Amino acid sequence: MQAKEIKKVTIAGAGTMGSQIALQCARKRFTVVLYDVSESSLAGAKQVMHHLWHAFGKGKSQDSSQALESLDEILTRIKFTTSIEEAAEDCDLINESVPEDPKLKGELFARFNKLCPARTIFTTNTSTLLPSMFAEETGRPERLVALHFHKPLMSPAIADVMAHAKTDKELVKVVAEFAESIDQIVIIPHKENSGYVFNHMLGAMLDAAMDLVIDGVATVEEVDRSWMGIMLMPQGPFAIMDHIGLDTVYKICQFWAEAENNPLRHRRCEFIGEYCQRGHVGIKTGQGFYKYPQPSFQDTNFVAKTAAIG
Amino acid sequence: MQAKEIKKVTIAGAGTMGSQIALQCARKRFTVVLYDVSESSLAGAKQVMHHLWHAFGKGKSQDSSQALESLDEILTRIKFTTSIEEAAEDCDLINESVPEDPKLKGELFARFNKLCPARTIFTTNTSTLLPSMFAEETGRPERLVALHFHKPLMSPAIADVMAHAKTDKELVKVVAEFAESIDQIVIIPHKENSGYVFNHMLGAMLDAAMDLVIDGVATVEEVDRSWMGIMLMPQGPFAIMDHIGLDTVYKICQFWAEAENNPLRHRRCEFIGEYCQRGHVGIKTGQGFYKYPQPSFQDTNFVAKTAAIG
Repeated sequence: MQAKEIKKVTIAGAGTMGSQIALQCARKRFTVVLYDVSESSLAGAKQVMHHLWHAFGKGKSQDSSQALESLDEILTRIKFTTSIEEAAEDCDLINESVPEDPKLKGELFARFNKLCPARTIFTTNTSTLLPSMFAEETGRPERLVALHFHKPLMSPAIADVMAHAKTDKELVKVVAEFAESIDQIVIIPHKENSGYVFNHMLGAMLDAAMDLVIDGVATVEEVDRSWMGIMLMPQGPFAIMDHIGLDTVYKICQFWAEAENNPLRHRRCEFIGEYCQRGHVGIKTGQGFYKYPQPSFQDTNFVAKTAAIG
Repeated sequence: MQAKEIKKVTIAGAGTMGSQIALQCARKRFTVVLYDVSESSLAGAKQVMHHLWHAFGKGKSQDSSQALESLDEILTRIKFTTSIEEAAEDCDLINESVPEDPKLKGELFARFNKLCPARTIFTTNTSTLLPSMFAEETGRPERLVALHFHKPLMSPAIADVMAHAKTDKELVKVVAEFAESIDQIVIIPHKENSGYVFNHMLGAMLDAAMDLVIDGVATVEEVDRSWMGIMLMPQGPFAIMDHIGLDTVYKICQFWAEAENNPLRHRRCEFIGEYCQRGHVGIKTGQGFYKYPQPSFQDTNFVAKTAAIG
């Protein structure tokens, strides 16, 4: 199979990431199915697409050779469905963004395996799990590869394409070319690794940030001020976590805490869990470490604010 | 003692950091002594000051109430000396940037302790050591506090002021006010912590970056491309290490590898050590992970460069 033979793409899981990936594929003229078990998630996805399109997607990174399309025109290429049969039918490539649980991912792909043509490529957008954790369960391990997005609608956009030990080597090439065809800059880790390249570093940085607050070395705001002031960035680690969603951060923490039975990871789980229990999971609920839509880290004098001395 | 009573400041260690701190203090009208055991280091410091001044220091972050001074005028307030007696005489505050070795720092302050007035405040610019590791050796633990700089000549500039268990609490306030008087935004960790706030996170990120290369997951360039492309930053972790100096990174790695007898840290030591042995310690020798003055990560298409697929 060649990348140019990929015509119909199914995105499984209609959360923030799935919605963005579906929109980017449709924008690049693929026929897209966005599949989710929940009708309300699909409805939410449409809202997310409208919001993102107007916030930063609009018109950017389009081929100059093609006429700019409106969001409505692009959306005609996306079918929203709760039917897995419809999602599987005649599909060339599936990318899943369902919750970070290897069992769930394995089961989902096992169902797709029975319904999809033999040619269908299975890809996972997992952030820190390994494809090998659920490759056998999919029923077609040689056609499973990670295709992981960061900000698919933005430019530049980086995507990771990562094989596991049993992935057909040709598939890596096909999926990387597909990723490039939807305007992603491709990074191919040379071996299977939790967090690929970037998430491996980001995870270490976020863990260190949480430890500083848990250990009482600094407050959330002081940690972010330090990072923003020295790195000259518009966000610090806690603002980044609000953006990712604390429910997602929690799920990742929890998985690795249990997998490694690591006390440091358990501690971070508890820390993030307290925010989640209060319903403060980040931007999407209007409150996480910061309060939205006008979080304090966006104040002009946030970085320069003098510490309470003495 | 009040911050405004600080008039004469001694900077011990005339490396890149010491030179910048001395220049920033002189620019803010303090009387400065730059002390080093090596004449050639002092000569090098003058060159560094000229270079930095023209590169980014010139005119920035000056009080608008004061007339802009030329570098030559500012330099009249800096005495360059190899005499510790001269450095100690009538000194209000010492900040040391000597190599990252607690024994060396303790011995240096012990010598100053015998020569300085009782009022002299001892501050360390260590990046990851703890003041408590050499506080007793100084002979005046209650007057020792960390005052740690990042980019002292830039704006914004962040500085950490950190006590150890025996530091006089009033001293934290005095040193923080002094730091503000030389245009630093102050972060005060609530307890003693290796790496303060920012360096704790940076260290975790840099360690993760090295592990990716050591484990063969990605190349130096791929790691930096991922970070730069996703964080929208002009430098990735390896470029940052070239900037810090691989000799300094090595010394920090080595200290903690031995202190914790941590095999992961020993591995990173070996990795960085190979560069150092070849004399490739970063920007200052024209070669580190990248070749200077035109490192490849500054190429327009560095991030977008397509991975070698297949």
